[in-house]
Amino acid sequence: MALVVKKFGGTSVADLERIAAVAERVKRSVDAGDRVAVVASAMAGETDRLVGLCRAAAAGDGDPAEMCEYDSVVAAGEQISTGLLALTLQRLGVPARSWTGWQVPVRTLGHHGSARVDTIDPAALLASIDAGVVPVVAGFQGVDANGRIATLGRGGSDTSAVALAAALGADRCDIYTDVDGVFTTDPRIVAKARKLDRISFEEMLEMASQGAKVLQTRSVAMAMQHGVRLQVLSSFNDRPGTLVVPEGDIMEQEVVSGLAYSLNESRISVMHAPDRPGVVAAIFSPLSQAGINVDMIVQTSAKVGEVANVTFTVPETDLDRAVSLLEAARDEIGYKDLIADRGVVKISAIGLGMKSHSGVAETMFKTLSERAINVDVISTSEIKLSVLIKADYLELALRALHAAYGLDAKEEPYGGS
Amino acid sequence: MALVVKKFGGTSVADLERIAAVAERVKRSVDAGDRVAVVASAMAGETDRLVGLCRAAAAGDGDPAEMCEYDSVVAAGEQISTGLLALTLQRLGVPARSWTGWQVPVRTLGHHGSARVDTIDPAALLASIDAGVVPVVAGFQGVDANGRIATLGRGGSDTSAVALAAALGADRCDIYTDVDGVFTTDPRIVAKARKLDRISFEEMLEMASQGAKVLQTRSVAMAMQHGVRLQVLSSFNDRPGTLVVPEGDIMEQEVVSGLAYSLNESRISVMHAPDRPGVVAAIFSPLSQAGINVDMIVQTSAKVGEVANVTFTVPETDLDRAVSLLEAARDEIGYKDLIADRGVVKISAIGLGMKSHSGVAETMFKTLSERAINVDVISTSEIKLSVLIKADYLELALRALHAAYGLDAKEEPYGGS
Repeated sequence: MALVVKKFGGTSVADLERIAAVAERVKRSVDAGDRVAVVASAMAGETDRLVGLCRAAAAGDGDPAEMCEYDSVVAAGEQISTGLLALTLQRLGVPARSWTGWQVPVRTLGHHGSARVDTIDPAALLASIDAGVVPVVAGFQGVDANGRIATLGRGGSDTSAVALAAALGADRCDIYTDVDGVFTTDPRIVAKARKLDRISFEEMLEMASQGAKVLQTRSVAMAMQHGVRLQVLSSFNDRPGTLVVPEGDIMEQEVVSGLAYSLNESRISVMHAPDRPGVVAAIFSPLSQAGINVDMIVQTSAKVGEVANVTFTVPETDLDRAVSLLEAARDEIGYKDLIADRGVVKISAIGLGMKSHSGVAETMFKTLSERAINVDVISTSEIKLSVLIKADYLELALRALHAAYGLDAKEEPYGGS
Repeated sequence: MALVVKKFGGTSVADLERIAAVAERVKRSVDAGDRVAVVASAMAGETDRLVGLCRAAAAGDGDPAEMCEYDSVVAAGEQISTGLLALTLQRLGVPARSWTGWQVPVRTLGHHGSARVDTIDPAALLASIDAGVVPVVAGFQGVDANGRIATLGRGGSDTSAVALAAALGADRCDIYTDVDGVFTTDPRIVAKARKLDRISFEEMLEMASQGAKVLQTRSVAMAMQHGVRLQVLSSFNDRPGTLVVPEGDIMEQEVVSGLAYSLNESRISVMHAPDRPGVVAAIFSPLSQAGINVDMIVQTSAKVGEVANVTFTVPETDLDRAVSLLEAARDEIGYKDLIADRGVVKISAIGLGMKSHSGVAETMFKTLSERAINVDVISTSEIKLSVLIKADYLELALRALHAAYGLDAKEEPYGGS
């Protein structure tokens, strides 16, 4: 009897009808002999509604007392959805009970609003499963050392599910969502995108951190660390999903498995800075002190030994702060101009086979240059190649690269979007 | 520095604007030097919304597992409102934090959905007050011995507030609501109804249990038992409210202090039952076994020693069940006819002075008979006289009695409703 954690996102429990469909799905799994624990998000829209109420009520200074209240209010969303799902399961004859984060307990560390799971005590949940009562656990939430409710940040329900699967020693963690699995790229943009049957943790991690929204980055990292077998699948049909597995379980490694893109990018160019040791540190240290994550970096020298241009990306949400900080440090850095550009997108090609194959970059640049698409910045890792281009070219570039890397489906899988 | 518990009902925290008004009120009290703890209900309409969701999701068999989930879902309402109120207080510069029932903890006994407060540990809340942080406590909820969230039943926030005031040793418990205080009768029906400055616990208890909605019966009983001074007042203006105080604090006892009415009444007449010992027991024992509360009872004999008619009232919500039970027991009881009537209302005159004054019943019957209003059933207690009449006559009877007992205001206090 496999022990399976099944996680349902907000769209899967958006209303009572969908909750009933989720309950039917859990019942089928229980009837088939699985030992099941469920993790649920808040009903779609509920978290946004509660965050909106908090924002309107609060001063917005983000101090710890304020964040504690945010967490308490927002966590009510999962308290409601898990109770309704437990009621629906009971109605279908499946004994079930809801568990809030503090009831499990899921103990957290770190800041409210973006807490980390520290420990999960599996004893009570395992006892419930053994007694034939399906636990329905509130995702996204836990309790801190002071007994205050803490949330894991947006998308944290995936992390809750993986952490729970690790704590329970589950055989698998099924992440139900509103898409059929992990695709070679966004099927809303590329009609010939294919669903992947399998993907490695490493590739999934890059896909998630480079913008693919299907799984939260932290949850993938945690699954990799604890060896939790993940499955991403749709809660709206019974098609097989995508298994996320250790690298060793992938028999044939694709050179490029998928293309991710991120719109939350902005470009900053510090122009005509003196080309001397320490200038790069002078640029990046105020940003790092402010907790702003600098991603892609390129440095070019106009005249060797005289001036340099430094271009890099920061999350679009941090752009205004970054610009203010750099303007304040203008004299210290000694640059002439500062250019900020929101109209950029990062496209990443990801694949385990890239490690042993050199043609990936060549294909990238050839494909883009044939379409007269300029590459602003480049960055690479062992299994990833990212380029920054003008956002206007996103769809064109994605479709061209998808074909060039041989990712196109023979036919549009479900007749297009 | 007085320690005051301030309780705000659902209409007082119905939206962010009203929550801000509540926060301002709390701030004024804190600024004036009071030590304040706040109890809040869910935002008006939220509890109904959540109950509606539960009803639609659940089988509705009311078993303990089902009621546990109801409680967990519904308690989210106060978790949200208290968090928003704490955020608003912080914004106004008043340090504050929310407390759910399990955080305090408020320990409960009894059935989910209608639990009783067992104990409240005041230590953490007192420490918070001493540290200058206003505790904002979720009304209506606590936690049972198994760590499950339990609710106190509808209107339980009043009880939460009184229990908290008792546990904290508060000097006063202010119940803020959407009316100005306790009135001689319902001002929506009798324009000349007067707000009472003071009322005794005993009178308030009768008013509440006879249908006045301003305070929940259990909360008054608990306040009386623990000697908690209650004040009922409006959260929408600054007029003085009504103090609910021990009998000894009332200098001049009115013969009749107020008139209550209850529409949740229905009348059952068991006609032509044999007039023999045991027949009344045969009628009432199936009802009491089913937990149906029988209130007013009158027995009349048509022919002495031959047949009797027994008339009594049950809550309208229990009428169908009561009729089924009595029909099932027809042969055992041996009656001929069963008459059920929903179209009745109970009017009660309440006053401490009634104990030493005999004219109350006379005034009641004279006033009603002058208007050709038939009295179906009568019941009395030391400080209460209740009559059952046809519901059609409610307004007429209430206005006439209000005048007859000398309760009319000299003028309509705020120019009518």
